[in-house]
Formats: sequence, structure tokens, C-alpha cells
Amino acid sequence: MEQLLEKYAALAVNIGVNIQKGQNLLIRSSISSAPFARLIVKKAYEAGAKDVHILWSDDDITRLRYDLAPDEAFKEFPDYYVKAHTDAVEQNHAILSIVSVDPDLLNGVPAERIAEATKAAGTALSEFRHALQADQISWSIVAVPSEAWAAKVFPNLETSEKQVDALWNAIFSATRADLDDPVSAWQSHINNLVQKSDFLNNHKFHSLHLRAPGTDLTIELPEKHLWCAAESVNAAGTTFTANIPTEEVFTMPLKTGVNGVVTSKKPLSYGGNLINNFSLTFENGAITDFTAETGYETLETLITTDEGSKYLGEVALVPHSSPISTSNLTFYNTLFDENASVHLAIGSAYSFNLDGGKKMSREELVAAGANQSITHVDFMIGCAEMNIDAIKKDGSKIAIFQNGEWAI
Amino acid sequence: MEQLLEKYAALAVNIGVNIQKGQNLLIRSSISSAPFARLIVKKAYEAGAKDVHILWSDDDITRLRYDLAPDEAFKEFPDYYVKAHTDAVEQNHAILSIVSVDPDLLNGVPAERIAEATKAAGTALSEFRHALQADQISWSIVAVPSEAWAAKVFPNLETSEKQVDALWNAIFSATRADLDDPVSAWQSHINNLVQKSDFLNNHKFHSLHLRAPGTDLTIELPEKHLWCAAESVNAAGTTFTANIPTEEVFTMPLKTGVNGVVTSKKPLSYGGNLINNFSLTFENGAITDFTAETGYETLETLITTDEGSKYLGEVALVPHSSPISTSNLTFYNTLFDENASVHLAIGSAYSFNLDGGKKMSREELVAAGANQSITHVDFMIGCAEMNIDAIKKDGSKIAIFQNGEWAI
Repeated sequence: MEQLLEKYAALAVNIGVNIQKGQNLLIRSSISSAPFARLIVKKAYEAGAKDVHILWSDDDITRLRYDLAPDEAFKEFPDYYVKAHTDAVEQNHAILSIVSVDPDLLNGVPAERIAEATKAAGTALSEFRHALQADQISWSIVAVPSEAWAAKVFPNLETSEKQVDALWNAIFSATRADLDDPVSAWQSHINNLVQKSDFLNNHKFHSLHLRAPGTDLTIELPEKHLWCAAESVNAAGTTFTANIPTEEVFTMPLKTGVNGVVTSKKPLSYGGNLINNFSLTFENGAITDFTAETGYETLETLITTDEGSKYLGEVALVPHSSPISTSNLTFYNTLFDENASVHLAIGSAYSFNLDGGKKMSREELVAAGANQSITHVDFMIGCAEMNIDAIKKDGSKIAIFQNGEWAI
Repeated sequence: MEQLLEKYAALAVNIGVNIQKGQNLLIRSSISSAPFARLIVKKAYEAGAKDVHILWSDDDITRLRYDLAPDEAFKEFPDYYVKAHTDAVEQNHAILSIVSVDPDLLNGVPAERIAEATKAAGTALSEFRHALQADQISWSIVAVPSEAWAAKVFPNLETSEKQVDALWNAIFSATRADLDDPVSAWQSHINNLVQKSDFLNNHKFHSLHLRAPGTDLTIELPEKHLWCAAESVNAAGTTFTANIPTEEVFTMPLKTGVNGVVTSKKPLSYGGNLINNFSLTFENGAITDFTAETGYETLETLITTDEGSKYLGEVALVPHSSPISTSNLTFYNTLFDENASVHLAIGSAYSFNLDGGKKMSREELVAAGANQSITHVDFMIGCAEMNIDAIKKDGSKIAIFQNGEWAI
């Protein structure tokens, strides 16, 4: 176990944020993940980091606030917390998020309260989010089991200890941390993904047509769209891997170019609540109708966050045979579940998904077809019956996905 | 136990920071004290707080930094952390520190490294410290056992659990949290202390003469000195109690008016190291010589922090029969040990210890005789043989302490 944790921490530091000598690292972590956070701190200093600071959170206190604080509290967001993030961008620090959140943390909290809090945070951190979505600095996300999260993923194991162990093992397997040499395994995995994105970029497709049970969707792509995968490059020219694990090859839709219907294939955990079996109808990019078996109100809250939350910001291709998919686990955590399935994101687009986008102003991004929003939420639509055609400007088609798998 | 914790948390919220309706609370806490911090958050919201934020720390990560970070790291201090404090002052938030630190945390760390870190933090937080020492906002300190701290205070108990329980009980007793109605017990305790400070203020003494084994010290007082006790008043006119427990009646020495020798009577825990059996020699306020049985280097680091760390900032009177003194425990924590004993502080003076001082500029404070420094460290000199005369301008004397006890 100790060896696996060491390997996983090394992945986060060396492949994830790829910390550089003399660089600072800002960690965001729940206090329940402290043992792993300490391991990251150690590895970061050993890799040459100058200084490491941590912004801690605590699920219990987050919930206490939602239950007990007056309404006015949710209209504010602390300036020092914003400054921690914007300073990190200005001074080229790396940022690592260690996520462990209980998917049911906010069960029963009024949706308006969550919406208000999300809006306040999203607005306060909008400059930071813009910088992150332009890959200005190295950033990455890894996950650590909390008891509540492990209980959600493995409800049939008898003890909390067994549940946490099982989730650790699932994480080690999904992130390749259980291989002999995870760092070099990641290098070759990244190369495979980049071959797919190169193929798609070389063809400069005009649109995608996705078909699956409950889904018939056409997604037009911006003229300057770029497919990306796994490895990113920050403003200083350093590579990093924003998500561990990552199995996706993704780009942005043209904001006003989405039409048809899409149906979810995995539960979506949003703001501590679950949305199950939902569908969205699009006209000229905008969501004009939606249904949900459970979590309808939460979905409504998400979609009405701002003007941009009615549009899509990402389309990502993941084969149905991906390791996370074949594990047959639902992690109730986007970092994992998005890598089991073709998915879309409601909300803002990543500027690096446009050629030259990293240096564009917000106005230029909008003009190029990129959606802007204070939110960005992935939801899973892939399955074994998913077929995707990529269509060129001249109308010719290439089948890029057949029966849920890459066809190229 | 649960009831005692509830009472202790209520003391911190209602007597300590005395949170007001609609006010924000900033908590500083180690992650090991999370269960108690959560109780404080709950009590604060129940008392009408608008919002509660927490700046967490972790002893293990603090130590990792001292062991592994490069020298350059210790020259810096994060701006966001400073902003959290200065914003709290500007917006009239209350600040509660929950302390639990291992007295041996920094054992073996090179003294220069600790000095550099202390200087960086002291300099970065100097505006905040000035505001706090002028009682601009409500602030308070309470303590929670950590395993390492409990092991230091109760080394002879067999299990960590018993040590922590024993330290909790010692804390409940020292803070009166074990009484039926701690809040009203505190009100009458505060009144008793205020009677002593009123007596001393009415006499406008010129100087104090302290005698005990190893101690023969004259302390001149500034013309505008004010004796204070227990309860403070912030800039908005709200009372608060900065330390729980508190048994002291205290004022500031005239910076250049201290002469003679003083000998410590309790170990001093400074920056994670212990200084034992030390003496200081003063001439015209400045420390001109010092000895220490152990921790000489640490003491030297403290005294040479800056120009002001060679001078005193506080003289505090505590009877030898105080509850903490009769417990015969050494807590290795100033919050408790200072309340067992007459003590002095190396470093900056509190501006509220001058008549009108809260509104004075730094220059005016210096002109009135107040020492300025980035540090303020209490050390214990009281014992059963301590006699103190208070001397008026005309040379007449009143014995205010005899055999370690109040004589007034």
C-alpha cells in the first residue's frame, strides 16, 4: 500500500503538475486527505519545489455552513481565497487539487442556496478560471478516497475500511499507479492519445454526428477548433497533465452549432446532489428542453446558472473499452466517470481548444465560437451502442466511433 | 465529555471573541483540532455569525517544510495569508486561534531557519499585529490537546488516549469550563481582575521593583501606562476576552526603563524548541547579557530577531495561587503557563496599555515609551518568594505582591 501511494504521489507531482525546480506548489485538499497531501508535499520538495502551501477544506464545515449560515453569507466569497489563486497564476505556481468529496454531501440543501454559492464562487474566481482554461499555469487533479465517497462506490462491502481500500485499489488501477513504472506507462499512454487528436486535427472536420439509444445529436465545430489530449503546455512552455486519469480526446463545440437530443448514461454528481437518467434537447446550441428521472431541480439550477450554462463547452471522445469503463464502477466523481465514456460539458469552453485561443481575449474567444460561463460540468453519454461520424465541409463522412470504440 | 466541549466552545464564542449578530469569524486551527473547530463553527452560526472561514495548518507539513524546503522559501510569506488577516481587520471580523502545537515540533531545526521564518512572518503580518495590539477587532485564543502536546504534559500516562483526556481535563479546569455555568463564572472572575487593575491605575505608579531568588529588577512605567485585565474593548465598542484562561493584570514597561537581572521559573517553548532556566540582564531597557541551561541558541535567536526584541513589551502580575499554578502542571504553552506566574514579554508592547494608545501612530507609541518589535514572547518569572513593591513618583512604596500573592 505504501509503495502504491508513493507511486501515485509521484505521478501527481511529476506527470500531473510536473513541478519544476524553484517553482511553488499550491495544493487544494480536504483535511481528510491530509496523509496523502503530506506525501505530495514531500515529493514536491524532493523534486525541487521552492515552497508548498495548502488551502484546506472540510466537508463537515462546508455542510454546517449550508445548514446554518444566513442567506447573506452565500452572496459573498472571501477575497483572500481568490488572491491565493490569482497570485499563483501571476507567479507561475503549479496548482494541484486533491479531490475526495462525498457525492451526497449536500443532499437536502435547498437548490437556490447551492446556486447562490456556486454563482458567488464562480464570479469571484472568473479571472482565475479564465487563466486555467488557457493553460497559463500547470494544474492537475487527483483523487483520494474519503469514507463517505468509498461507501457510495462500494455500498456492499461491510466495513468502512474495506470500502476505502477497494476505492484506493480502483483509483490505483484507473490511474495506472499499480504498474511497475507508472511514469513511463503514462508517457506511452499520452502518445497513443495524441495520435488520435493529431488524426482529427489533420482532417479539420466541420461537424460530428452522435447516435446512440436516446441520442441523436449534431455538433458543429468552430473553424479554428483544436482537438487536445492528456498533455498540455503552460505559458512558460512546461508540459503537464491536468487530469489523472485521462482517457479523452476532446475539443469545443461551436456555441450555436448544437442540435438534437442527448441522453445521459451515468449519474451526474453536481454540487453534492445526484442527477439520474436525464436528457437535453438543443436548438442552435441552446438547451430548450430537459428531463430527469431524479435531480430535476438540481439540473435546472445548473442549466440556469448564467447565460452560458445553457450551452456546451466541450465534446470528449472516450472508448467504451477504457479501463475505467471496463471496471464497471460508477465513481460518482467526474474525474473518473468522464474517462469511462464519451461526454459533453455544459458551460465554458477551454480556450486551448482553439488554435491561438490561449492568447485570445474573452471577446475574441466568443467571436471564434467558444462558449463562456462561470460553470463547466461534464456529463456522460457514451455506451456500447455509440456511433459517431465526423463530417467534412464537403459533406463526406468518416466513421470515427463504431459500437462505442475508436474506428480510426 | 460532550457537555464539557459544548461549554468550552460556548466560552470561546461568547466570552472569547463575543461574536455579534451578522459578524464574520475567522478561525485559525490545526487540522488535528477539526472536531473542536467544527463545534466552534456551529456555535458561531447559532450565535448569529454571518460567515465563518478557517485558515488550517498542519504540524506535519510545517515540519516537512522546515526539513525539506530550500533556504529561499523562508524569506517569503504568502500574500493571500496576510490578506486574510488584514481583510478581517478592515471588515471587523472576529479572529479565534485554536492552538494545539507540539512543544517539540521544531526540535533539531537549525535556529537560523526558524529565525528567518519568524522574521518573514512577523514582517508580513506587522500591520495586522499592530491592529491586534490596538484591539481594533475582537480576537481570542483557546487551546485543544494534540497527541504530541498531551504526551509532553503527561509523559507518565501509558496511552495516548489517557494523555489527551488528562490534558482536556486540565484545560477544562484551567478555563472554568467544568463549572456549572462557565459564562457567569467568567463574568465574576473578570470583575475581580478589573478591581486590581483599577487600584493600580488609580495610583499611577512610577515604577515596580521585583525581588525573588535570581531576580532583582526595576521596571519604570511610561507616564501614560494603563493596567489592563481580562476584558478588552474593540474599535466598534464590543467587549472580548483575548485569552482563555486569563489570570493576569498587566501593563507595558517604559522601553528604556528596565534595569537589573531576572531569572525564568518555567521552561519557555519558542518556535518549537524549549529554553530552560535562563536569566536576562538589563541596562536602560536593553538585554545586555543572558544565560540559559538549555536552549541558549534559541534564546539568542529570539533576542536578536530585531532591534525591539532586546527590550520588554509587557509586565504581568499573576498570583502564585492561581488555579493553573496550583495544578502544578507545566503546559509548555504560554496561553496556560503565563497564567501560572508573574511574567514579562520580550518584544512589542500592546498599544492599549497606554492611555489613548489605541489611536496612536507607531511614532506616537514610540515617543510615549512603547517598545516595537515583530515579536512578542512571554516568559515566566513568578514564584512563591516573589515580592513586588510599586513606587510612586515621590519615592513612597506600596507592597503589591508578597510571597507570590496579591497584597492589595
